[in-house]
Amino acid sequence: MSHGPPYRFFDDYSEGAHPVILRHVADNNGGQQPGYGLDDACLLAADRIRARFATDGDVHFVSGSTQANLIGLSSMLAPYQGVVAPVTGHIAVHEAGAIEATGHKIIAIDAADSDGRLTPSLLDAALRTHEDEHTVMPKAVFLTQATELGTVYSKDEFTAVVRHAKECDLYVFVDGARLATALASERAGMDFSDLVRAGVDMFTVGGTKAGGMFGEAIVIVNAELKNNFRYHLKQRGALLAKGRFMGLQFERFFDNDDLWLRMGSLANENATYLAMAFESCGVELATPCDTNQVFVVLDDTIIEQLRETYGFYNWAPAGDGRSVVRLVCSWATQREAIDRLATDLAALTRSS
Amino acid sequence: MSHGPPYRFFDDYSEGAHPVILRHVADNNGGQQPGYGLDDACLLAADRIRARFATDGDVHFVSGSTQANLIGLSSMLAPYQGVVAPVTGHIAVHEAGAIEATGHKIIAIDAADSDGRLTPSLLDAALRTHEDEHTVMPKAVFLTQATELGTVYSKDEFTAVVRHAKECDLYVFVDGARLATALASERAGMDFSDLVRAGVDMFTVGGTKAGGMFGEAIVIVNAELKNNFRYHLKQRGALLAKGRFMGLQFERFFDNDDLWLRMGSLANENATYLAMAFESCGVELATPCDTNQVFVVLDDTIIEQLRETYGFYNWAPAGDGRSVVRLVCSWATQREAIDRLATDLAALTRSS
Amino acid sequence: MSHGPPYRFFDDYSEGAHPVILRHVADNNGGQQPGYGLDDACLLAADRIRARFATDGDVHFVSGSTQANLIGLSSMLAPYQGVVAPVTGHIAVHEAGAIEATGHKIIAIDAADSDGRLTPSLLDAALRTHEDEHTVMPKAVFLTQATELGTVYSKDEFTAVVRHAKECDLYVFVDGARLATALASERAGMDFSDLVRAGVDMFTVGGTKAGGMFGEAIVIVNAELKNNFRYHLKQRGALLAKGRFMGLQFERFFDNDDLWLRMGSLANENATYLAMAFESCGVELATPCDTNQVFVVLDDTIIEQLRETYGFYNWAPAGDGRSVVRLVCSWATQREAIDRLATDLAALTRSS
Amino acid sequence: MSHGPPYRFFDDYSEGAHPVILRHVADNNGGQQPGYGLDDACLLAADRIRARFATDGDVHFVSGSTQANLIGLSSMLAPYQGVVAPVTGHIAVHEAGAIEATGHKIIAIDAADSDGRLTPSLLDAALRTHEDEHTVMPKAVFLTQATELGTVYSKDEFTAVVRHAKECDLYVFVDGARLATALASERAGMDFSDLVRAGVDMFTVGGTKAGGMFGEAIVIVNAELKNNFRYHLKQRGALLAKGRFMGLQFERFFDNDDLWLRMGSLANENATYLAMAFESCGVELATPCDTNQVFVVLDDTIIEQLRETYGFYNWAPAGDGRSVVRLVCSWATQREAIDRLATDLAALTRSS
Repeated sequence: MSHGPPYRFFDDYSEGAHPVILRHVADNNGGQQPGYGLDDACLLAADRIRARFATDGDVHFVSGSTQANLIGLSSMLAPYQGVVAPVTGHIAVHEAGAIEATGHKIIAIDAADSDGRLTPSLLDAALRTHEDEHTVMPKAVFLTQATELGTVYSKDEFTAVVRHAKECDLYVFVDGARLATALASERAGMDFSDLVRAGVDMFTVGGTKAGGMFGEAIVIVNAELKNNFRYHLKQRGALLAKGRFMGLQFERFFDNDDLWLRMGSLANENATYLAMAFESCGVELATPCDTNQVFVVLDDTIIEQLRETYGFYNWAPAGDGRSVVRLVCSWATQREAIDRLATDLAALTRSS
Repeated sequence: MSHGPPYRFFDDYSEGAHPVILRHVADNNGGQQPGYGLDDACLLAADRIRARFATDGDVHFVSGSTQANLIGLSSMLAPYQGVVAPVTGHIAVHEAGAIEATGHKIIAIDAADSDGRLTPSLLDAALRTHEDEHTVMPKAVFLTQATELGTVYSKDEFTAVVRHAKECDLYVFVDGARLATALASERAGMDFSDLVRAGVDMFTVGGTKAGGMFGEAIVIVNAELKNNFRYHLKQRGALLAKGRFMGLQFERFFDNDDLWLRMGSLANENATYLAMAFESCGVELATPCDTNQVFVVLDDTIIEQLRETYGFYNWAPAGDGRSVVRLVCSWATQREAIDRLATDLAALTRSS
Repeated sequence: MSHGPPYRFFDDYSEGAHPVILRHVADNNGGQQPGYGLDDACLLAADRIRARFATDGDVHFVSGSTQANLIGLSSMLAPYQGVVAPVTGHIAVHEAGAIEATGHKIIAIDAADSDGRLTPSLLDAALRTHEDEHTVMPKAVFLTQATELGTVYSKDEFTAVVRHAKECDLYVFVDGARLATALASERAGMDFSDLVRAGVDMFTVGGTKAGGMFGEAIVIVNAELKNNFRYHLKQRGALLAKGRFMGLQFERFFDNDDLWLRMGSLANENATYLAMAFESCGVELATPCDTNQVFVVLDDTIIEQLRETYGFYNWAPAGDGRSVVRLVCSWATQREAIDRLATDLAALTRSS
Repeated sequence: MSHGPPYRFFDDYSEGAHPVILRHVADNNGGQQPGYGLDDACLLAADRIRARFATDGDVHFVSGSTQANLIGLSSMLAPYQGVVAPVTGHIAVHEAGAIEATGHKIIAIDAADSDGRLTPSLLDAALRTHEDEHTVMPKAVFLTQATELGTVYSKDEFTAVVRHAKECDLYVFVDGARLATALASERAGMDFSDLVRAGVDMFTVGGTKAGGMFGEAIVIVNAELKNNFRYHLKQRGALLAKGRFMGLQFERFFDNDDLWLRMGSLANENATYLAMAFESCGVELATPCDTNQVFVVLDDTIIEQLRETYGFYNWAPAGDGRSVVRLVCSWATQREAIDRLATDLAALTRSS
């Protein structure tokens, strides 16, 4: 086995920021600017995002993804309204009750059969059990593109579920913490403009996982949701005093060289490379590797040995002394680390 | 009058970050680290803050000051408990109801007679009108050091109000968004260790206004408030994925050269220089200039003319065609801008 | 002095229900009815209330006044919006932070100069200090008729403040826990139809203090506030399973003999009788006795002696060893108790 | 078929109050009493409840069951803590998001295999997926006795799940809206004292469904949860001004003749009689009829015809043109109505 501290495949935020981002920030640090997101960099970044996503939506910047989700969703909902999400949706489990803390129920749907994707018929099932004032009123749908299982909605799947939600008078919120990997994914087959074309009401554009220091953009497409949004930001503590430091990052992400999308591509390519390493050792993928996350089924004894040298999470038991584990790649994952893992894995599988 | 875009005396976050901070971030950007504030930089920064403030408290980092206030205070309070604050306290007016959005009432006290400072007798008055279950139960006190009026608590004043609060079984939370200017203030006469020595339960250490990109440290002194604090952070969307970018800034602030405190000193010196410019023109200060904010009383006609070249806020009408205006300096305020303002003001006052 | 347990002038809910109400409930207890306010009694009661107040508004019943206030106000407000109320308003102090617990700030205004009444100029002052997203957005006004100081708005005062609020794009909510006494008050000079005519958006009709067992009606005049209100009721725990027991009380209150209004008259007449007893002893009223509450200024020594035989609350110190005390009458107050108090008071004032 | 308006088997609150309760209220309506639950009737009722349930717990009265659940649970939980409940638990679906509106997540567990009952192993499964600050922290368990499926926990089942919850450092809250039917149930085999003996921290004693007008008692067994509970009641609008009207009902329920328990027995006996009527027609029970709810599987065509004369809810589709329906009995259900239904059903099943 190789040595040194375990190499982290835990997540896609274990590395720092892309040097190009840091340099752009440092180069444009000088001078006075209005605070709270009204500076030139935020304005330019918003323009570029609007242009790239083909929308006249409002664009706001917040520091993190949970913040974006809780502010975006709570801004759409009356107190008695809830949001439909897959059981595996990030808001449903891994945000410490952030949505409920704003007073809203998450109507969690088991979407295991569709690899973590919501479908029109799953929405219908949720609506049928929420019909009067004794239950919450479903009013929004929470989609993640890419999903928490590393899968993506294809353009058709995405369009179908968004359209159906709109027909059911539901707002559609898309958590795009990993949107760069989704738009770079072959299976998705989606262009930037396809989100707005499908009819989403609000979506986020993840900066952190795409090589930023921090920051997510919230894009409000639906005009009726634009009003007074800065009040929501301020009240939840999300209106950063020196907003320029988010604006500068996104201004650079969406400059002509498409840095943001390229970061998504890189992450996906690294994951594909990793998935192939597993497959070449005869290891089965638990879900298709559409983006930058790899879910594989391994013997628990092999997991234990790999863990000495590589960091990753156990996802779920798979029976017979095996488990599903998750490994995540990013734009910064080192191919050498993947190669080492492949070598180690091959040795372990031979000997077992 | 001088020309160009108005020079901003609006606030202390119109400038970018101190170049030393940015350089430190760029120099330490590489390598893998655990996310969510468990990285080496956050750990070292926490150690340095503990050492500097002479406490064994827990240290957490969040991106902004409203976020720090709402998380810190809501973590202390049962649903039926409220927080006592001056009417001019930042949480009482200028945080868009962030505290109320967590379910808690602010018991606002008029502290005009004490220049925005709470006193033991003001606390007593608040407690007397909140005696049973028909009112909220006061359980915390919100102090700002320096205050929103640019004044500071002297060491004795600070100690007296903190001790009295503790005797009344109230938690003491100190908003230190401008703590660097307070500890650098002659009138305060306080050392770093005096906060903990006085008995505060929780305080914040402001990074943004001291030359950071963003970030405030929350220091939890009282052991009974330490438990599970990271749950609060996560639930409110404050647990930054790449926490290192806050850790690196604070690690640098509290390195041996005391950058953080020096930023506070610089801001104060610039404000004193500005206050003297006003006084040399015969302009009256509305409140004492203890730190980096200058409140002066000016004729409305002069205000209107100054505003063409200098940015600042009207604070309150002062009667007889005059108003109180606020001008704020920072570590980055240009002395040349102050000199120009002094010249312009002298010309205007002569001609009026 | 007279003997026995102190006679309670503490409040207007120390007595049980009016026997006529109880009899009506018992007489109509039988038979099956739909639950949750959809029974015949609730429907008839709503019809009668609509007819009496000359409105086509929606009518809902809840068990208490704090519940009515918190549900009504929170149904009107987006998360970042607040409600303007006098400092002495019931929601501002004496509801244990019930409004804040729904996430909303109360913008408290000192209305001492207008005896607890809001005025157009007081509203303007509040609006001037709440102009952008750094503060909450004022969106509703909370009026009490009669006020917590026992005073009432005259028809002109009421109409003026309601109209001004509407011009300022504020919703008007009227807490009518003591509305019966207000409509029976000479100074108010208001008819039932004057609430809707002035333009209020929502008001409550207090049953408890008018001789009911419990229950307040919420009348929603503004059509845009009607939608989905039952969801709010359910979510806050206010949708009573056997709603008929509220419906039956209000059906009886608003039957042809105008029981509800007569209860208000009786309470006022008892209070006037009590006020005259004080005045005949040379005791000064602290505020005008427009309805069923009497505020008088007494020597603390006399207060102490009276308290052995009569129950009432100290309201505020008045200086020079004197205090303002509050005595409340209801429809059920015994004239004999008032006569005894008059005799005792006369003896005490002679001897002091 | 029989005629007239459909006979309601929808629920157990379609009838009014038991006449004995109304008479007791009317007989004790006179005289002055302190408000807000501090009257003699509330004190005596609390004493009787303590004696009957063999506890020195605190007893409070609120008007409804959703109110009791939301106040009881939110009083136990820090903002980041959640409550474990079966998917079919009343709070999980049928309270319009009342718990989430207080900021807390419900961790919903599928308990179909155990007929709506939580078990130690179901608790363990929930705890395993909630381990750090990225999820809510489970801190309470919500049990209903009897359950929403009409089943009960046997004494052993109840004791086992309560003990296990306590070992896992979870508070146990028992929703006793139908506790009278549970304690009267043979399968439960529980005595009044068995709740406290098992170790529950808080439970409610339902008055509404047991023949009251309204009202649930909240019993706080765990001393650390007693403090300041009246603040919670006030803040949520649950502190009824004339609390005596709840006290009087419960004082009567728990007088020597055990009216409350007898009401539960009557409801159960009526349901058994109804279940036997179904079974005698060859109709299958969907879940065992332990208490006063009957779940049966019927052909949709028969359901449609029965619905013309009898009111009841469809519960779930059962496949093959059949559905599960729920019929609920109460202390007041008429045997004649059940007999009519049996006759009609027999005719329908013969002809189908």
